Amino acid sequence: MNEFDFINQLRAKTEARGFPSELARGIGDDAALIKQLTGRDTVVSADMLVEDIDFRRDATQPRLLGHKTLAVSLSDIAAMGARPRWALVSLAIPPETWASDFVAELYEGLLSLADCYEVRLIGGDLSSAFGQIVIDSIVMGECCSGNAVLRSGARPGDHLFVTGSLGGSAAGLRLSEQGARAGPYELEDPEVRFIQQLLMRHLRPAPRVGWGLVLGEERLASAMIDISDGLSSDLHHLCRESRVGAILESGKLPIDSRVAALCGRRALDPLMLALHGGEDFELLFAVSPENVPRLPSKVDGIGLTEIGAIKPESEGIRVSEGSHLWNLKPEGWKHF
Amino acid sequence: MNEFDFINQLRAKTEARGFPSELARGIGDDAALIKQLTGRDTVVSADMLVEDIDFRRDATQPRLLGHKTLAVSLSDIAAMGARPRWALVSLAIPPETWASDFVAELYEGLLSLADCYEVRLIGGDLSSAFGQIVIDSIVMGECCSGNAVLRSGARPGDHLFVTGSLGGSAAGLRLSEQGARAGPYELEDPEVRFIQQLLMRHLRPAPRVGWGLVLGEERLASAMIDISDGLSSDLHHLCRESRVGAILESGKLPIDSRVAALCGRRALDPLMLALHGGEDFELLFAVSPENVPRLPSKVDGIGLTEIGAIKPESEGIRVSEGSHLWNLKPEGWKHF
Repeated sequence: MNEFDFINQLRAKTEARGFPSELARGIGDDAALIKQLTGRDTVVSADMLVEDIDFRRDATQPRLLGHKTLAVSLSDIAAMGARPRWALVSLAIPPETWASDFVAELYEGLLSLADCYEVRLIGGDLSSAFGQIVIDSIVMGECCSGNAVLRSGARPGDHLFVTGSLGGSAAGLRLSEQGARAGPYELEDPEVRFIQQLLMRHLRPAPRVGWGLVLGEERLASAMIDISDGLSSDLHHLCRESRVGAILESGKLPIDSRVAALCGRRALDPLMLALHGGEDFELLFAVSPENVPRLPSKVDGIGLTEIGAIKPESEGIRVSEGSHLWNLKPEGWKHF
Repeated sequence: MNEFDFINQLRAKTEARGFPSELARGIGDDAALIKQLTGRDTVVSADMLVEDIDFRRDATQPRLLGHKTLAVSLSDIAAMGARPRWALVSLAIPPETWASDFVAELYEGLLSLADCYEVRLIGGDLSSAFGQIVIDSIVMGECCSGNAVLRSGARPGDHLFVTGSLGGSAAGLRLSEQGARAGPYELEDPEVRFIQQLLMRHLRPAPRVGWGLVLGEERLASAMIDISDGLSSDLHHLCRESRVGAILESGKLPIDSRVAALCGRRALDPLMLALHGGEDFELLFAVSPENVPRLPSKVDGIGLTEIGAIKPESEGIRVSEGSHLWNLKPEGWKHF
């Protein structure tokens, strides 16, 4: 059984216990959603980062890892259209790593990103471990009652948008696997500069917190998810929850321009990276036709691209490439 | 640097950023405490369990491990005097373990305990891992505004109490290390029965949720902590936060009677197990003299023992054993 089927089973078991009145959303979205008593709701999300699965110690730096630890959970809160407020971090770490500066630097990177959004680190746990580092990042956020954006609200006819650009993080990962390392390279050379920038897309992702807030507070999005597993898989998640289909127009995908510039010599396919690559931490969301004119063109300097439309469930999830239409399979990241 | 010094440094860094008005307690207690807008506060705690540090796969069962995963965090919420409401669980697990029934049984044990307290599993994460299993257990709870019991409220003259009994979990761990295993043994033999019961004290701890609620809702305790690291260490944590000293009367410690019955032949010292053993998950709390008569004698069948008193900080933390007084060092569990 893959993890998505397992999570669905677990979700069915929890839902069979009945829904407490305060629980607006449990398992099955970017974050859980709890109704508070007075006009504000709480969202909470947890993300685990495991050494040699989610990161390699020789390919990143502790400060970057601390940044990414928090960024992945901030992205989940953004995908709910909520404001991140509080963070907890649990860390299992081998004694020899504890004895180094690793942990102090990791928290420096984490606190530095937290400061950008006035998020407070309020707790967590520390444990020794054998071998691999494991980090669990928990972020709690809040939004006005009823403003949270779930995965389940998309309707046929909605327009489909994505923030920023796609494929950059996956390209950075591939470059890292080929031996590229973040460092003080000569940045006048455009190729070297691109490589550094793509590495940073992977190692130091920027969560779209500002976009999430605008889309939630202005009630602009009918459904939203962040792109962590990969556009293909995350679009499937959104469509399954909304019981809809979708069509993507491949020519409209905002593929990171640096990816195209570098791909030829490195046997990377920009479209495949953009569709299945994962960890772009952009926001993918649906907008009803009447709300489309209300969308800002940029938030915090990050733009927006219309990449397709929501369709009836019966039409499946497809990609339109020129005159060709093909079924999009969820080929993003899977653990099991 | 040990983990307590590191956590204190991290806490100072977070507090240097200023305290948001909603944050009643960040790092430095059993759980963080966030004031909500209307008469109810939220508490949240995270606990990591690491294979071969916190448990051994060959010495427990997945259902028991699932129970313990949630129990340790429920205990933290109880130590705040709050009601547990929501749980998230993050799990990193090797693919070969994923392929077995392990994960399904782990969640069975967890959900079964959650049902006892009407706690809902609302989220978490699943990740593959190499080698060791790591579980992070996050529980959110709530209490009426101002009713949370912090570690910092004890005052000289307060009486010191502990729920239940001490040393049983540590004895169970030692028995497990000596090869004893949970199983359908012949329970007529009192020694075998005791061994099974002590193993279960370790493998299947019972969080004192009922006691926590009574002490919080009735505002009976001035300070509280749960005994996870060990009485000696946890009393030190409480005294440091309250800036007080304490005296324990060794003759009054409610040492698990089964420990004494089994210890002789196994080279275990009951008093040392009770003082430093850890993972009893009992509640240790201070009560002002005027509140002592209001204490119930039992909650959910679990009794209470007065074990000492809070003293001025200058008197240190000591144990009175007959006519002898000695300084109690924090010799409970440390990761680093």
